[in-house]
Amino acid sequence: MTVETESPPVSPADIAAAHMRIGGHVRRTPILEAASPIAGAPPVSLKLEFLQHAGSFKSRGAFNNLLSRPAPAVGCAAASGGNHGAAVAYAARALGLAARIFVPEISSPAKVAKIRAYGAQVQVQGRDYFEALALCDAHVAASGALPVHAYDTRETIAGQGTLAREWEVDLARLGHAPLDTVLVAVGGGGLIAGVAAWWSERVKVVSVEPEGAYSLRAAFEAGAPVETPVDSIAADSLGARSVGKLVFEIARRRVAQTVLVEDAAIQAARRALWREFNVVSEPGGATAYAALLSGAYRAAPGERIGVLLCGANADLAAFAPEA
Amino acid sequence: MTVETESPPVSPADIAAAHMRIGGHVRRTPILEAASPIAGAPPVSLKLEFLQHAGSFKSRGAFNNLLSRPAPAVGCAAASGGNHGAAVAYAARALGLAARIFVPEISSPAKVAKIRAYGAQVQVQGRDYFEALALCDAHVAASGALPVHAYDTRETIAGQGTLAREWEVDLARLGHAPLDTVLVAVGGGGLIAGVAAWWSERVKVVSVEPEGAYSLRAAFEAGAPVETPVDSIAADSLGARSVGKLVFEIARRRVAQTVLVEDAAIQAARRALWREFNVVSEPGGATAYAALLSGAYRAAPGERIGVLLCGANADLAAFAPEA
Repeated sequence: MTVETESPPVSPADIAAAHMRIGGHVRRTPILEAASPIAGAPPVSLKLEFLQHAGSFKSRGAFNNLLSRPAPAVGCAAASGGNHGAAVAYAARALGLAARIFVPEISSPAKVAKIRAYGAQVQVQGRDYFEALALCDAHVAASGALPVHAYDTRETIAGQGTLAREWEVDLARLGHAPLDTVLVAVGGGGLIAGVAAWWSERVKVVSVEPEGAYSLRAAFEAGAPVETPVDSIAADSLGARSVGKLVFEIARRRVAQTVLVEDAAIQAARRALWREFNVVSEPGGATAYAALLSGAYRAAPGERIGVLLCGANADLAAFAPEA
Repeated sequence: MTVETESPPVSPADIAAAHMRIGGHVRRTPILEAASPIAGAPPVSLKLEFLQHAGSFKSRGAFNNLLSRPAPAVGCAAASGGNHGAAVAYAARALGLAARIFVPEISSPAKVAKIRAYGAQVQVQGRDYFEALALCDAHVAASGALPVHAYDTRETIAGQGTLAREWEVDLARLGHAPLDTVLVAVGGGGLIAGVAAWWSERVKVVSVEPEGAYSLRAAFEAGAPVETPVDSIAADSLGARSVGKLVFEIARRRVAQTVLVEDAAIQAARRALWREFNVVSEPGGATAYAALLSGAYRAAPGERIGVLLCGANADLAAFAPEA
């Protein structure tokens, strides 16, 4: 039996519709052509999604959820390592909704402060994202709040996919070459599912995960989402114990390769992004770049690569200045 | 007697030539459409020049100098508050030249470290930029090194002007509205002279200076460049005691308005850029945005404004995280 010929759960048309829906609320983040760290390779295209509202791509999915489904008077609720919570809080405030955000104890103080600054109620409890999610689910069941899942709904995936649509359109408008390959960091997988759903077979989609948080690699090995241990400096953004079911339906057909990087490579990538571009990134935001910089992803000669810089909700006090 | 009908010393054709000359060496920095901090106003276009090599627009002028004039075996020399020195060091290394950089004692440790990391010899001496410049001039006279002035040569001004050319072209390519007005921070004035030389009368060019370092405003009041006291948190990038003569030849015809901002407004702008965009800026890099945010520049209804974020060579350890 094969299901390969079925349509994926999120189509390019869904993403185009999400683009129309959220376009007035999210930033069209710019792209930058930069010399590749690989000598002789074509320029790398960087998508500067850290410039997005609330500091990460998560605002796209948050708005697409809240603009697609009516929320009750009690408002919306979400569980999050931090970035999704900040995005839901931001979007809820923009749309005049109440929001309650459940974050685990590992979330960075910078992210928790950001969520509070957007006016949401914050509950910091649980050891990891999955424990916070269980608390959120209980709250939703008791209160009737509208849940906004961080990655495993069609609305979330289609929202994140708008980023790939923008990237492709803007490369053409600016006269830059299209991409052969895109490197995308993975936590629960909503982002890579959206990117892969947009680009389908036109662009090779490669996932990048920390060696200590490899939920998509594990799903590929098992043939289905499975729980894996999480131990990485990027845990508060890439620390979902497993990818979503919808996510994997898309990823198993559209993600061409899974790459793992060491935490040390992620830290080196953060330092390089500051040194070379004056860009501050959180560990999860630098993970895709780490795959290129460390050689964990081996490009073919002439391969044109895009790297998604997806988030920057860093605690500046914890960001070591260069030596 | 009037000289208003003479051609300015740098023409749009000079800037187009500089663009061709340096295009393979500098980054075409992206632009971002963002909601204006003024309610109901059109979107603001931000030019993200902090993404430039060596952390500021200065790399443009540095390359245009070094690619326009042959350097002797002893290499090149420059005086700088820090950013121009980093740019000359970066460009010299890229072109295989030796560089000696003179910086005053007020330069930030982050900038001095950056200059050294690019392989230049660094001499930290003098109380301000003008004292470092005197030391550099003496070195040039004794050694025959090629001097690269931070703002007051045609090559430097034309190089910085390439930024305005890119901005205008990319707005059109991306389908965004053209600018009515551009806000530009001023130290010695090479940047605003280049920007004004490009945009001529198509765009209203407004200078922004700290209240404690207002060399262009002083030149307008005196009718010629004059020395002014310098006391501002932005002194290491905007701290020239006077603007250049070539600079003022252009500015007096093309700069429509001079605006001053308090140091506190600059710090508030830095915090806002981090909070709203995850962008780290140095004081001088946030000064133009401060004029908009503080209301020091009063926009007309419907006025479409561009703000140049010109540098980000911040000392992260000194950048206070948001409360």
